[in-house]
Amino acid sequence: MGWGQVEDLVDRALAEDAAWSDVTTSALMPPGMGGRARLVARCAGVLAGIEVASLVFRRMDPSVRLDVATADGARLEPGEVIAELEGHVAGMLKGERVALNFLQRLSGIATQTRRYVEAVEGLKARIVDTRKTTPGLRVLEKYAVRMGGGHNHRFNLGDGVLIKDNHLAVLRSQGVSLRDIIARAKDEAPLTLRVEVEANSAQEALEAAEAGADMVMLDNMDLDEMRRAVELLEGRVLLEASGGITMANVRQVAETGVDFISVGALTHSVTSLDIGLDM
Amino acid sequence: MGWGQVEDLVDRALAEDAAWSDVTTSALMPPGMGGRARLVARCAGVLAGIEVASLVFRRMDPSVRLDVATADGARLEPGEVIAELEGHVAGMLKGERVALNFLQRLSGIATQTRRYVEAVEGLKARIVDTRKTTPGLRVLEKYAVRMGGGHNHRFNLGDGVLIKDNHLAVLRSQGVSLRDIIARAKDEAPLTLRVEVEANSAQEALEAAEAGADMVMLDNMDLDEMRRAVELLEGRVLLEASGGITMANVRQVAETGVDFISVGALTHSVTSLDIGLDM
Amino acid sequence: MGWGQVEDLVDRALAEDAAWSDVTTSALMPPGMGGRARLVARCAGVLAGIEVASLVFRRMDPSVRLDVATADGARLEPGEVIAELEGHVAGMLKGERVALNFLQRLSGIATQTRRYVEAVEGLKARIVDTRKTTPGLRVLEKYAVRMGGGHNHRFNLGDGVLIKDNHLAVLRSQGVSLRDIIARAKDEAPLTLRVEVEANSAQEALEAAEAGADMVMLDNMDLDEMRRAVELLEGRVLLEASGGITMANVRQVAETGVDFISVGALTHSVTSLDIGLDM
Amino acid sequence: MGWGQVEDLVDRALAEDAAWSDVTTSALMPPGMGGRARLVARCAGVLAGIEVASLVFRRMDPSVRLDVATADGARLEPGEVIAELEGHVAGMLKGERVALNFLQRLSGIATQTRRYVEAVEGLKARIVDTRKTTPGLRVLEKYAVRMGGGHNHRFNLGDGVLIKDNHLAVLRSQGVSLRDIIARAKDEAPLTLRVEVEANSAQEALEAAEAGADMVMLDNMDLDEMRRAVELLEGRVLLEASGGITMANVRQVAETGVDFISVGALTHSVTSLDIGLDM
Amino acid sequence: MGWGQVEDLVDRALAEDAAWSDVTTSALMPPGMGGRARLVARCAGVLAGIEVASLVFRRMDPSVRLDVATADGARLEPGEVIAELEGHVAGMLKGERVALNFLQRLSGIATQTRRYVEAVEGLKARIVDTRKTTPGLRVLEKYAVRMGGGHNHRFNLGDGVLIKDNHLAVLRSQGVSLRDIIARAKDEAPLTLRVEVEANSAQEALEAAEAGADMVMLDNMDLDEMRRAVELLEGRVLLEASGGITMANVRQVAETGVDFISVGALTHSVTSLDIGLDM
Amino acid sequence: MGWGQVEDLVDRALAEDAAWSDVTTSALMPPGMGGRARLVARCAGVLAGIEVASLVFRRMDPSVRLDVATADGARLEPGEVIAELEGHVAGMLKGERVALNFLQRLSGIATQTRRYVEAVEGLKARIVDTRKTTPGLRVLEKYAVRMGGGHNHRFNLGDGVLIKDNHLAVLRSQGVSLRDIIARAKDEAPLTLRVEVEANSAQEALEAAEAGADMVMLDNMDLDEMRRAVELLEGRVLLEASGGITMANVRQVAETGVDFISVGALTHSVTSLDIGLDM
Repeated sequence: MGWGQVEDLVDRALAEDAAWSDVTTSALMPPGMGGRARLVARCAGVLAGIEVASLVFRRMDPSVRLDVATADGARLEPGEVIAELEGHVAGMLKGERVALNFLQRLSGIATQTRRYVEAVEGLKARIVDTRKTTPGLRVLEKYAVRMGGGHNHRFNLGDGVLIKDNHLAVLRSQGVSLRDIIARAKDEAPLTLRVEVEANSAQEALEAAEAGADMVMLDNMDLDEMRRAVELLEGRVLLEASGGITMANVRQVAETGVDFISVGALTHSVTSLDIGLDM
Repeated sequence: MGWGQVEDLVDRALAEDAAWSDVTTSALMPPGMGGRARLVARCAGVLAGIEVASLVFRRMDPSVRLDVATADGARLEPGEVIAELEGHVAGMLKGERVALNFLQRLSGIATQTRRYVEAVEGLKARIVDTRKTTPGLRVLEKYAVRMGGGHNHRFNLGDGVLIKDNHLAVLRSQGVSLRDIIARAKDEAPLTLRVEVEANSAQEALEAAEAGADMVMLDNMDLDEMRRAVELLEGRVLLEASGGITMANVRQVAETGVDFISVGALTHSVTSLDIGLDM
Repeated sequence: MGWGQVEDLVDRALAEDAAWSDVTTSALMPPGMGGRARLVARCAGVLAGIEVASLVFRRMDPSVRLDVATADGARLEPGEVIAELEGHVAGMLKGERVALNFLQRLSGIATQTRRYVEAVEGLKARIVDTRKTTPGLRVLEKYAVRMGGGHNHRFNLGDGVLIKDNHLAVLRSQGVSLRDIIARAKDEAPLTLRVEVEANSAQEALEAAEAGADMVMLDNMDLDEMRRAVELLEGRVLLEASGGITMANVRQVAETGVDFISVGALTHSVTSLDIGLDM
Repeated sequence: MGWGQVEDLVDRALAEDAAWSDVTTSALMPPGMGGRARLVARCAGVLAGIEVASLVFRRMDPSVRLDVATADGARLEPGEVIAELEGHVAGMLKGERVALNFLQRLSGIATQTRRYVEAVEGLKARIVDTRKTTPGLRVLEKYAVRMGGGHNHRFNLGDGVLIKDNHLAVLRSQGVSLRDIIARAKDEAPLTLRVEVEANSAQEALEAAEAGADMVMLDNMDLDEMRRAVELLEGRVLLEASGGITMANVRQVAETGVDFISVGALTHSVTSLDIGLDM
Repeated sequence: MGWGQVEDLVDRALAEDAAWSDVTTSALMPPGMGGRARLVARCAGVLAGIEVASLVFRRMDPSVRLDVATADGARLEPGEVIAELEGHVAGMLKGERVALNFLQRLSGIATQTRRYVEAVEGLKARIVDTRKTTPGLRVLEKYAVRMGGGHNHRFNLGDGVLIKDNHLAVLRSQGVSLRDIIARAKDEAPLTLRVEVEANSAQEALEAAEAGADMVMLDNMDLDEMRRAVELLEGRVLLEASGGITMANVRQVAETGVDFISVGALTHSVTSLDIGLDM
Repeated sequence: MGWGQVEDLVDRALAEDAAWSDVTTSALMPPGMGGRARLVARCAGVLAGIEVASLVFRRMDPSVRLDVATADGARLEPGEVIAELEGHVAGMLKGERVALNFLQRLSGIATQTRRYVEAVEGLKARIVDTRKTTPGLRVLEKYAVRMGGGHNHRFNLGDGVLIKDNHLAVLRSQGVSLRDIIARAKDEAPLTLRVEVEANSAQEALEAAEAGADMVMLDNMDLDEMRRAVELLEGRVLLEASGGITMANVRQVAETGVDFISVGALTHSVTSLDIGLDM
């Protein structure tokens, strides 16, 4: 993680919560009074973001120190102590909500990712994320996916070439061939980037591969069509299944032999993991 | 909504997605080529964030203009056209993901809020949100709650006094009486703020009211205890039910006669509403 | 005080003064040369901002350390040493002006506030500030008011509902009743906020209270009218005297029995307290 | 004025006042309702900052337009209309306080400066400001001084060499001669900058001039000593009177024949000019 | 180019030059006076950055408009008019230096790149840049390279995997095989990125290719060794020549048959193209 | 140097290089692994920027510490060790390129400046820089000029009055005399600034001096004309030679007797000094 960036997110979140202007705590708590507290998992899951939570308290009040008992990526049992805090009580109270907002969301992502990863255990396919992340939190959310055992698709529009249906439709309407489209992409983009092309059928996937694509996205295909695409292309290009993936069908999709399965829900529909601060 | 702030969020989200460095679109799309597209609801729900989405495109490429067919707060049917876009195709493609990330999340919140609001229809209780929002997006998420028919609890630690268990525990351990605690809070905080006190039983609620609280939070009480608290205090102070509220029990909670029901899940566990961009 | 925010103010002030580009000191002073200096009050007053001044030197040159002899809120005698500095002479010289600009202004505010607070000693009324603060410095100026013994009215437009003449005029011209106005405000605003209404006569004050206001601002009333308002409303709502308050009349205003007296001059017309740095 | 910089100040001031989150106006005012208002001087003075005030409204709500009736630097009579506003009433109400905070403060500075300038009318001496400005507002406050007829001393530590007592004391204690000190300053500083030296007596002033100073600051000298310095040095170097200047003595100081009189109170102790917004 | 980012660069450059505080122009030029000027090439070269220069003037003073006669990437003859300016003379004078600083540097880069590109004309090899750019200006400098006919290597450490000598040395010292190193990189990095490995000999290049590298960097090899690497690997992986490339040897390097030639000097050692503003 | 400012430049450069998202190093290097490295000069030159480079590593990874063997301004021999690094290998690898980009560029400037300074050794003339610096890096580049033995002309448009041809042309066309132009400049500008006037002939230089200029810029004059200007004006005003200065003619220019020689190439056309990081 890039700490400069994360510090900025943390500072913004504390500002948004007016943590330094906590009227209740400022009115009631003796400023220098010390104390202890614990971050405790209230249900089972996978931890992600403990260093962010730690940073929240440190930025809020440098006197607050966390003694972290486990690490991001670890499985949590209900009631498990994640970290012990020591320092000014006022600082803990002011930072509590922001720290938990980060920690609960990121652990929620890691927990959900782990479920998908376990569902395809033993198969070649990797679970990857998408760009359907919360505005402003992508770096953390993609980190949480990795903590859950998932892999990252491209981070943003600048670090991967993905030629989608909309690109293809426009260009074909102008009479540009798929081969020329891919050649142009390879010509213009930084040379370190792979070129991936979206396909709606096994046949389109084949054409993309023959036209020079490094990867093909099998978009919203049914299982039969995906199997056909794998048969035609396995080993020649990387294949990614995308669209409509749920816990109910992810294993079947993996069994088709694709290399990657991208799951938007990993980040766009998250249930926070219940974690509390006990003083 | 504060547009200065929202513009900043939008610009950060576009930067995070490297929208201006979209290697695919830059390589392939003729820069000046115009076109049309539509934002379409793929399932039923409540719209929120259409002006944010509109701003995303405007910041990305001022040529892209939205003709919005409906308004935030409106109910959406599957297939309903939310807005028509016209302008540079490249700009639409570069801004698409960021616009949808905002729109889907905010509409998801509004949709979920509406469900809770409808569940208590006809009763006095109002559905209110919490500070369990996504770091950085609070202003938008609280707006989405209002679009769903909910009301806002305090925005941050600076615009409401809420004396919680942890505050009470520390102060009582030092022998400070509840009356003195509340007096001190009223003395120190900006005079425009109400003072709310957390209570774990009807008896504690009564004590808080008698000690001068303007509002009492009934925290994690069962329905019977809540009813007792309402009987003792209705009309004397405002009463807020909090903790463990779900769609399954929200109507029963409302039937106890409380004034407010706060629901963390409105913002901490959101399923994005499926909305797409068709070119 | 929120240190993140204050650090930002300090850094901006140092940048504005080009403290790091001090051509005189850079040209003449040996960079590593150490020395001592003292912050000394040149006249009597109340101290506020010593930690900000300390932060200025720390941000300018971490070698400069302050040994603070007293604390914000303390009364200063002419010639009293406020703090001893030790560290690089160059750092002291570069930070001197900015540190003094903060310290003199904030102490000026605290000193003036103290005078008002002492003028109403023994009476119930509290001296409160307004939003007539220097753009950019509100958080510090409201802090200085507290150091002088004053209390804070709302910090900004988001943490208090204050329905002013202009609001009332517009709404009444549309035929909306005062009761409906107040009900709408309670409905829309965060539930933690009190609703205050401006009144120009005791009669208007009574109407506002009966229509549901939590507080009433007695705006520019003469002493007789204020007394009438207090008679009618004392104990039912909080009463704030506002407009035209000076050292000459503040005690008389307090004697009417109002709860709060707001004084714009606390922050909008400040005489800096004379404090110097002696090397 | 540098508008980029001023826009930033304005945006920060609006954010500080949470102008976009004005709970009262948002709750009560119909968003699109138009109206008119006037900025009116409530007492006599000199105007400064009307374009800043105009910018505040424009940033708050682009619908609000000012028709400015006069210009910065103009004398205001009580009751004089400074500008007429037209646009959304909500935008006017949200921006009012911030606009007035800028306008009242800057006009207060211009008014006070004008008094000093008039006090020395007919004499050669110019009234100049100091670096004793409000942190963050220097660019605007120095502008207001100019609007009042004053001149600007250096803006910051980077655009003028001013060798003060503290510099001299340190260097002399190391046996460096005044001539060498000045030579070193000329050698190291950007060549566009004049070198000014602080002197406590006419004799010291003479030494500084002979050692190569371009300007000499006569610091806290009495009138006789100043006269002596002028006799010795007039025409050879520029002379600045500094320290302890008030309206009571400024004309006498000017009559000594100095070139500049610097007055810290122009900016460090300001009484806001009373200006109101009438709807 | 990402205009948000570029606007920020432009605003910083104007602030750095204190363009809004131009004491000379402010003192002397009538604010509203209009006029015309021309941007003229003083020697032959390739244009880059004209829209940035245009933005500088627009940000400085929106009255200044450029009528651009040519476009980035175009060849310039000595004396050729690049653009005609019309608007406030003061705005032109204040923005002149910053506009030229951008334009001259970027055109210098484009001109130098063009020379390298022409030197390898007719051969397969592409000229690519490096990360040896001026801190803060990478996005513009890489753009200028493209305007000169060059291609971009990766933009930053996040959009390409490049396993360098230092990585290899450390990992091998721990007994990790090249195959495992490359596998780990493919496993951890976003799946859209190619994996490039640095090699010091044809033999190392072969090993890297066999271990799974997508690209191999032939680092500081002599021409014979490069030829050997090309013979062994052409068509199997992409080959990049790097290190010690000059105008004197670039064609010979290209003749070895490599796919890319990276030239640090394109951006790290630039001679500004002489362009002037004639009023 | 102003560290706040420099930290900001460093953080932006690290962000631009996505140093915290270095996919290669993150994938391959064990996070906690320590190691050593050396910054080594690969050719002769003058060092500048070692503290900036040190800051880059410190911001990237606080574990990385530099033991600096020499100082800015020192002459470097090929192979000379500039600093030894110790700390996390990952941090070194991530910060390497940014650190070198700063260090190589600044040392390149210092090296080039030293050459010019040596070329005029023994003569009175000083080598000064211009405002032809890289946008964003002026503070560092002007620092590097000083490290090379050069002096700084004004930093920006705010800290020096320089009346150029364009100003004169406009004003004369309006019938304003040179004397009035200079008087106006002295009147309006901060009083600490010298007034410099551009002249195209010895005659114009004389006129400027007689009209009150403190400095005269001899712009693009040939050597004879410069000598004439020096004869006419030496000792009365400061004289600066400007335009068309190269290593080939700089000594002759100095021999004319001018006080300053400004050289745009010091910063606008720089060859980076080759410095490497050996692990």
